Amino acid sequence: MKFTILHQDKKSKARAGMIVTDHSRIPTPIFMPVGTAGSVKGIHQQELQKDIDAPIILGNTYHLYLRPGLEILKGAGGLHGFMNWDRSILTDSGGYQVFSLAANRKLKPEGAWFSSHIDGSKHIFTPENIVDTQRIIGADIMMAFDECTPWPCDLRYARKSLALTHQWLDRGLDRFNSTETLYGHQQAFFPIVQGSVFKALRKESAEYIAEKGASGNAIGGLSVGEPAEEMYAMIEVVNEVLPLHRPRYLMGVGTPVNILEAISLGVDMFDCVMPTRNGRNGMLFTAEGIINIKNRKWMDDYSPIDPAGNSYVDLQYSRAYLRHLIISGEMLGAQIASLHNLAFYLWLVSTAFENIKSGTFTAWKENLIPALNTRL
Amino acid sequence: MKFTILHQDKKSKARAGMIVTDHSRIPTPIFMPVGTAGSVKGIHQQELQKDIDAPIILGNTYHLYLRPGLEILKGAGGLHGFMNWDRSILTDSGGYQVFSLAANRKLKPEGAWFSSHIDGSKHIFTPENIVDTQRIIGADIMMAFDECTPWPCDLRYARKSLALTHQWLDRGLDRFNSTETLYGHQQAFFPIVQGSVFKALRKESAEYIAEKGASGNAIGGLSVGEPAEEMYAMIEVVNEVLPLHRPRYLMGVGTPVNILEAISLGVDMFDCVMPTRNGRNGMLFTAEGIINIKNRKWMDDYSPIDPAGNSYVDLQYSRAYLRHLIISGEMLGAQIASLHNLAFYLWLVSTAFENIKSGTFTAWKENLIPALNTRL
Repeated sequence: MKFTILHQDKKSKARAGMIVTDHSRIPTPIFMPVGTAGSVKGIHQQELQKDIDAPIILGNTYHLYLRPGLEILKGAGGLHGFMNWDRSILTDSGGYQVFSLAANRKLKPEGAWFSSHIDGSKHIFTPENIVDTQRIIGADIMMAFDECTPWPCDLRYARKSLALTHQWLDRGLDRFNSTETLYGHQQAFFPIVQGSVFKALRKESAEYIAEKGASGNAIGGLSVGEPAEEMYAMIEVVNEVLPLHRPRYLMGVGTPVNILEAISLGVDMFDCVMPTRNGRNGMLFTAEGIINIKNRKWMDDYSPIDPAGNSYVDLQYSRAYLRHLIISGEMLGAQIASLHNLAFYLWLVSTAFENIKSGTFTAWKENLIPALNTRL
Repeated sequence: MKFTILHQDKKSKARAGMIVTDHSRIPTPIFMPVGTAGSVKGIHQQELQKDIDAPIILGNTYHLYLRPGLEILKGAGGLHGFMNWDRSILTDSGGYQVFSLAANRKLKPEGAWFSSHIDGSKHIFTPENIVDTQRIIGADIMMAFDECTPWPCDLRYARKSLALTHQWLDRGLDRFNSTETLYGHQQAFFPIVQGSVFKALRKESAEYIAEKGASGNAIGGLSVGEPAEEMYAMIEVVNEVLPLHRPRYLMGVGTPVNILEAISLGVDMFDCVMPTRNGRNGMLFTAEGIINIKNRKWMDDYSPIDPAGNSYVDLQYSRAYLRHLIISGEMLGAQIASLHNLAFYLWLVSTAFENIKSGTFTAWKENLIPALNTRL
């Protein structure tokens, strides 16, 4: 994996760059649609490629490990072959899902025991086997196994949790360095900064991680309930320390405004279920503001979903029609809203790129944010 | 609406023809995908047009009347404008859904009272207001309001039910003849033959209906539980009587084999929820037989869904992948299976057309049926 910074904004820490993997070229800042169990919900691979033009998507190690399972993925030549996706894939490490989805969780120094949320079967994730699993999945970018520290938590817990994450990182790195890719393409391995909302811990973690010289670095444990201002403060502290010339990935974030603010703080990569999950529930993100399509005011609005949108659904379907579909629980409503929102998120990051390039990023961002916060 | 018979099979009653409405040319035999509430479940309009190439789809008057409702449909210029579909639409009359979905049904000579299955609100469908409703929907082909006689039923009930259907037909025809299309395009009105599984009643009904000189005729009340042989026997009796040079529409039928047998008995039009509903549940129809994709045998079958299929999903996704999606309850599984099945149904009728044209229909059908009945 290569990363090149092409443009550095002068008025902020924002930068425009290019990640190159063996599967695709990824302009940064980038948003990665979430393909939980090998599918971005409601979206065909062809739509991801042609309509949304996503150069990279995310897969969830926890979900893929349980279903379809490693044997099936290996037989398919990894997730790329299994889902027929020839651009890049990043996989998370499964830590977040173990703590949010699985039952009977037990955190031990060796790893995390849990029971499957599907059939109750018992499993352990360790820093080592999570590397092996991501080798089998074949992700272009693999993540270290960490504890996503819950919020709120006290300093004592956060410190203990961080120590575990760092120990696990070293074990994961050892395994990564002593194993090979299975399908011929290169795989990168990103460590994850934790430390809850404590600046000292965040700084300590960023220093620990920076020292590893990984090809990219992630910031985890944010957007887990804390106020946005605390999140921005943590990003600022961490990005002071993380190497400039490596991509920075802010995990699980967020709203369009969160993304713009994080870009201005020097973050390059994002993922979030918000565009698809909120879309299925009738929330549409646009450059004019947020539409709750279930609202009665859209009932007889026969205008296009988003006249300025850049997905084909934006002009092909009306607000009244989409409202009807969502209210009636028709699958097509979820499909349309997901496609619109993902296309909007990709527009947001690619337009950020253009504005960083032309030196207008901050003005563009400040101008856009009030609209993004508007409820239409 | 015009109908021309282009080819008459010599060894059966099958015929290949062309229906022309103000919205599209419809080669017959034809299968109409079911778009219950203004959407073929899981399928974008663009896919219906480009991938499935459906020249006509079906809408359900009952569903559309309740949601989005007539005011919204009228404001959109009818269902064509509302869902952005510029090919033909046929609407059923709502009778079937009143009797299968609604609560507190009361059949009176004036019409059918019922409570909405959505909010319990009370409504009446009459032969007259069902014409008005379909004028507002703007269907190219409207259906008469009938009682879909339940099966099994005794001769006495069937006779009474048929008399009501005939009275309602006359009232519906009066309304149809005294009203105009609302959006400038022509609308046809099809009467429906009923009579349960009683040959004498079916003959009587077909004679009553034939006399009306409608531009097309439908056969209802079949495929409601009776053995297939009884259904075929009824179609045979009815088609002896219905005018040759008008399209014949067999409502709500059915399996691929049902469709081939009915074509050979002189039926031209079909609709059924089977390709989409069974698809969502993991049943795939192919020219080699039926695949239950949930079966463990497909777990590691990385071959294309249907190597001979003519939808893009057939080659783009593997059986193992589709199985994983359906087992995991991923929306994309339902989308892929629905698209595959609809494309197969459209392939079936268009290939029937070609074989009728070339005089090979019966041989082709007899050769295909054993495969269609195979469980793969």
